[in-house]
Amino acid sequence: MTEPISEFRLRRRVQFYEVDSAGIVHFSWYFRYMEEAEHGLWRSAGLSCAPTPELAFPRVASAFEWRRPLRFEDEFDILIQIASLGERRISYACTMTRDGETLATGTMTVACATLGPPLRGIPVPARIARCFASAQK
Amino acid sequence: MTEPISEFRLRRRVQFYEVDSAGIVHFSWYFRYMEEAEHGLWRSAGLSCAPTPELAFPRVASAFEWRRPLRFEDEFDILIQIASLGERRISYACTMTRDGETLATGTMTVACATLGPPLRGIPVPARIARCFASAQK
Amino acid sequence: MTEPISEFRLRRRVQFYEVDSAGIVHFSWYFRYMEEAEHGLWRSAGLSCAPTPELAFPRVASAFEWRRPLRFEDEFDILIQIASLGERRISYACTMTRDGETLATGTMTVACATLGPPLRGIPVPARIARCFASAQK
Amino acid sequence: MTEPISEFRLRRRVQFYEVDSAGIVHFSWYFRYMEEAEHGLWRSAGLSCAPTPELAFPRVASAFEWRRPLRFEDEFDILIQIASLGERRISYACTMTRDGETLATGTMTVACATLGPPLRGIPVPARIARCFASAQK
Repeated sequence: MTEPISEFRLRRRVQFYEVDSAGIVHFSWYFRYMEEAEHGLWRSAGLSCAPTPELAFPRVASAFEWRRPLRFEDEFDILIQIASLGERRISYACTMTRDGETLATGTMTVACATLGPPLRGIPVPARIARCFASAQK
Repeated sequence: MTEPISEFRLRRRVQFYEVDSAGIVHFSWYFRYMEEAEHGLWRSAGLSCAPTPELAFPRVASAFEWRRPLRFEDEFDILIQIASLGERRISYACTMTRDGETLATGTMTVACATLGPPLRGIPVPARIARCFASAQK
Repeated sequence: MTEPISEFRLRRRVQFYEVDSAGIVHFSWYFRYMEEAEHGLWRSAGLSCAPTPELAFPRVASAFEWRRPLRFEDEFDILIQIASLGERRISYACTMTRDGETLATGTMTVACATLGPPLRGIPVPARIARCFASAQK
Repeated sequence: MTEPISEFRLRRRVQFYEVDSAGIVHFSWYFRYMEEAEHGLWRSAGLSCAPTPELAFPRVASAFEWRRPLRFEDEFDILIQIASLGERRISYACTMTRDGETLATGTMTVACATLGPPLRGIPVPARIARCFASAQK
């Protein structure tokens, strides 16, 4: 059995359609970048986040703070870490850096649910929970 | 002179390309919905948020919490309110409802800046500040 | 019984997140604008384009030609017309104008299908076909 | 001096936010995928597509035909080729494949322009034209 995973790093380049008319990445894109890293974390654990009627992970809270902007063709790094692993929820912390400088920090909490409608919270299946561990010792 | 404005309401319908494969609006879209309402607030004050090299409003923080999902073709309401009006920053609070039921609540803080590069914070021009007032008495 | 419908007009304002760093609407958005009008056409016929496992309308071809750009906060009109109504496909023609001036023209052909996987073409159900008529007499 | 470049290949994975509620990549994304490959082609020639007031490449026509859908987490290949290199325009042809099977084919013509407003067509600068050659001998 493999070790539980608690973090994942992704290098990414800014695409043209992500940049707004102020010449910087539109803030909505950081939430998608964070999700890309989340899905990379899951794949590195041998799992997929693809939703099914019986199992999905809708977001219940997410936030970002920005310090420095990203511009077209910038290369940057996304580090996502599991901040906490609850019975029904997983919380992530995310840091974006370019050449070691912190650009933005984010958080995201997802609930384990059946899709319904209505969405209904359920416990995180053991086969998933055992793949992950909190990055905060 | 017109009264300072502190809030704006927008009715919106969920578009197909906003819905993900779980059948609900992707979380990144709520940040865009909030920004649409922000720009409506500015237009209702006779202003435009169109960035120029000398004046732009990059986002420094934003967050959402979700309670109920939105689905394709749902009609919903976005209420944006000015939470605080600082010398260099404006903070907004946002509530999304459908038939009176709260779906999600969000916040967003924008800084007044010249675009550079680098971005550099400046005071909110008086001609803009005088158009707005905090919704929290 | 209501008359078959062959066209639909939609007025729309350019949103900030649709504009790229050249200050004009990114070309990918026109395809979404055309789809918004398509779904408005369907709603005006009392129908929904919401996909189900048994019935969806994946796109098989689409094209645009651009003459004039759209910029932030522009208001513009989208006219979508049914160009042809086949046994298994529907073709649309689309014209975008601002103050009567043509900005762009587009086309889109959708197939009627079950979602699978795999996607499999089926005839357009009679209850849908009878709602529409070609705009080209 | 380096050889003129006529094509570029890019491997890409489907992201969650690119998939619609029919479980397949939304058609608007293929135009963005094609543009990603275009920008990779330019970077491989030592150039950037970043628009400036004096030089930008707005799209004047683009089209796609789809044969097979892409789904979440699929890996696929994008081949972009220079179809023709005119005095004021560049035309591209694009093929998307997965495991060698053709999924979609596209075309895109861009004009060389100053941004204005208004946009105004200009000749492709020699320093750019000399970097590229048509892929069709």
